Amino acid sequence: MDKKKILIQLDSDAQPSAFDRVVAIDAGADELFSYGHVLLDQIRGLVHGAIFTRKPSNLKSTAIFIGGSDVALGEKMLAEATKSLLPFLKVSVMLDSNGANTTAAAAVRVAGKHLPLKDAKALVLGGTGPVGQRVARLLALEGAGVCVGSRQVARAELVCREIAKRSPSAKLTPVATATADDVAAALAGQSIVVAAGAAGVVLLSKATRLAAKDLKIVIDLNAVPPLGIDGIDVMDKAAAKDGIIAYGAIGVGDLKMKLHRAAIAKLFERNDQILDAEEIYALSASL
Amino acid sequence: MDKKKILIQLDSDAQPSAFDRVVAIDAGADELFSYGHVLLDQIRGLVHGAIFTRKPSNLKSTAIFIGGSDVALGEKMLAEATKSLLPFLKVSVMLDSNGANTTAAAAVRVAGKHLPLKDAKALVLGGTGPVGQRVARLLALEGAGVCVGSRQVARAELVCREIAKRSPSAKLTPVATATADDVAAALAGQSIVVAAGAAGVVLLSKATRLAAKDLKIVIDLNAVPPLGIDGIDVMDKAAAKDGIIAYGAIGVGDLKMKLHRAAIAKLFERNDQILDAEEIYALSASL
Amino acid sequence: MDKKKILIQLDSDAQPSAFDRVVAIDAGADELFSYGHVLLDQIRGLVHGAIFTRKPSNLKSTAIFIGGSDVALGEKMLAEATKSLLPFLKVSVMLDSNGANTTAAAAVRVAGKHLPLKDAKALVLGGTGPVGQRVARLLALEGAGVCVGSRQVARAELVCREIAKRSPSAKLTPVATATADDVAAALAGQSIVVAAGAAGVVLLSKATRLAAKDLKIVIDLNAVPPLGIDGIDVMDKAAAKDGIIAYGAIGVGDLKMKLHRAAIAKLFERNDQILDAEEIYALSASL
Repeated sequence: MDKKKILIQLDSDAQPSAFDRVVAIDAGADELFSYGHVLLDQIRGLVHGAIFTRKPSNLKSTAIFIGGSDVALGEKMLAEATKSLLPFLKVSVMLDSNGANTTAAAAVRVAGKHLPLKDAKALVLGGTGPVGQRVARLLALEGAGVCVGSRQVARAELVCREIAKRSPSAKLTPVATATADDVAAALAGQSIVVAAGAAGVVLLSKATRLAAKDLKIVIDLNAVPPLGIDGIDVMDKAAAKDGIIAYGAIGVGDLKMKLHRAAIAKLFERNDQILDAEEIYALSASL
Repeated sequence: MDKKKILIQLDSDAQPSAFDRVVAIDAGADELFSYGHVLLDQIRGLVHGAIFTRKPSNLKSTAIFIGGSDVALGEKMLAEATKSLLPFLKVSVMLDSNGANTTAAAAVRVAGKHLPLKDAKALVLGGTGPVGQRVARLLALEGAGVCVGSRQVARAELVCREIAKRSPSAKLTPVATATADDVAAALAGQSIVVAAGAAGVVLLSKATRLAAKDLKIVIDLNAVPPLGIDGIDVMDKAAAKDGIIAYGAIGVGDLKMKLHRAAIAKLFERNDQILDAEEIYALSASL
Repeated sequence: MDKKKILIQLDSDAQPSAFDRVVAIDAGADELFSYGHVLLDQIRGLVHGAIFTRKPSNLKSTAIFIGGSDVALGEKMLAEATKSLLPFLKVSVMLDSNGANTTAAAAVRVAGKHLPLKDAKALVLGGTGPVGQRVARLLALEGAGVCVGSRQVARAELVCREIAKRSPSAKLTPVATATADDVAAALAGQSIVVAAGAAGVVLLSKATRLAAKDLKIVIDLNAVPPLGIDGIDVMDKAAAKDGIIAYGAIGVGDLKMKLHRAAIAKLFERNDQILDAEEIYALSASL
């Protein structure tokens, strides 16, 4: 008889995310071990509990999900979990702290439905945040030329260098987006804009957007009004807006949710997968 | 295929109640997400995790149970949870901190099996505590004249005013029960006495009870001896005692447990219910 | 319909053991209520939640597992849990903090597969630690003469006295094992050596071991190299080593895991069992 599919949720927040728990159950996990307030030095013991309890042939039925609102901490948790696996005793691990991986993957996938991403020109506003970085990584992976926007260009440069370490052929340009003029200049020639900034900050005014003649698609990943792109609605889903195609956070959310469930289900196919942004993005091609 | 029935248990105590967990499973919840040490400011995020993960048509399969030993805090948690629901995205919510709602509902229901509650005269000893207040609310709802007893009559007055806000037609009288003479005076004309005081405090002596000529039924909700009503046994269940009908906490407990399970099961019938004392009491009519 | 089998895991560590959780599921528990950071004064309430929620005839489907890395604390938790049961309302309880009971039981059982334990002579190195004490208890129970080794002989004396309280007929001798000469002297005439010391401490050198002419079986329960017995491998399972039979921790681990699962399954057969070292050892006879 097949072993029950056990998902071990390691969440850095005080209470393990109810959102991630519901999705895990709906994605087919039979048992969910939810841990909150997980500290880095607790991960090794928890991972060893996962790998030392079933025969290697059954380890595909045990998997780990890393979540919590702090994405940078989630990345450290993923590194620690990966380090705690043994060459012949592994379980698959997925990172989706704050939904950053599934959100970024869904955003880039919807963009690619409307125009070829290879050699497209894209601007990521809020490009140094956890979701923005991932959007830039995935667009670059598809061969787009990506401008990473930040109010502080030094931060954008840092992010570009980090992404270039992963993919040396990535076409990345750090751009300042501190003022409306900065943003207007950065928009020149761009066909895609993704806004991934903090809640409540309008990053792109309607006037600036209307003046951008090459723009074909805008995606705003902020779910709480005011959105980052003026005139976009959180519910927009391939909506025609002033001659461009627009998506709001909820418009992208449908694919994001499907992707989240599909990634959880995929964890249980093999015991040697690490599902980070790129792997989750690859998975979205089949949805 | 129907979605799994997920119950999200929000408990204010350090460890989420094992009692409530067993009952939830026996009541048919497929998955139980148990949270302990839940703070008010964590509730919004947990409720949003509940409402943002399934299609509206599936939200009847997600529900929230609020528990913990602090009933006043539970009421605040219920208010916070209710406030976090959205007009078109709701899940049903039940409050039963410290078992107060199911206990009070069961106590009033057993009283009503023996005599009509409409226009009955009832005294609630320990009437300002969380269970006592609910017993008074439910008796008043049925049309009984209710004397709310407290050692400090000012506290009883406050409770009467609070109940009157909910049901302006309620017939409520605050009474002092600081001394044996107070209690004897308060008992005059009462056909029902419910004792809902703190553990270990005898609220009604046998002599005073025997002198109360109109008394037909006494219910003591304290499970730990000495009980609040002298001469009643915790196991009494419609027991004949000196010409009156007596119930102890365990005697009421059977209906309380059935009601707890039935209320959990009811949560999963629709996604727009708030099950507080009155709704749980209404449910007890069919058991 | 049969009630779901609920296992209540009370773990003294900050996060309840993932190891114990996977084993519980694989052993057939339908529902697992995992509590971490369990304090002694929380146990009564949790046990009452277990015993007050189902009819006595259904209580065999609720059970308690006590775990965590601190075995001495686990023993206190077991005592507290046992004290919280009522004469007519019980659930079965198992103690396996740090895997000490299942490890010790498996070690003694594998020794007994190779030679009769009655009147055998055995030395337990690290005999005052939680696993070592249990190995000594179980060997003594089988009628072996047991030398309890410790660097401080006073501690070994204390352990011998404690075991003698449980089984007055036990043949126990405290021995000093502070130096290589001590160990060589303690080994004289022993046919069994079990090493149950702290990780990273070599308790028995190869030269001393080879000089011990009566030695027939060595078992090392340390899973992290360097092992307690020089020349033994963690994977050894009835391996022939210099004319003796050798077991490493993983070599014993297979039986230990089977035993852990069997003990969990046994909890649900009746509601009045306390599974500590002796009961778990008895169970291993049938595996």
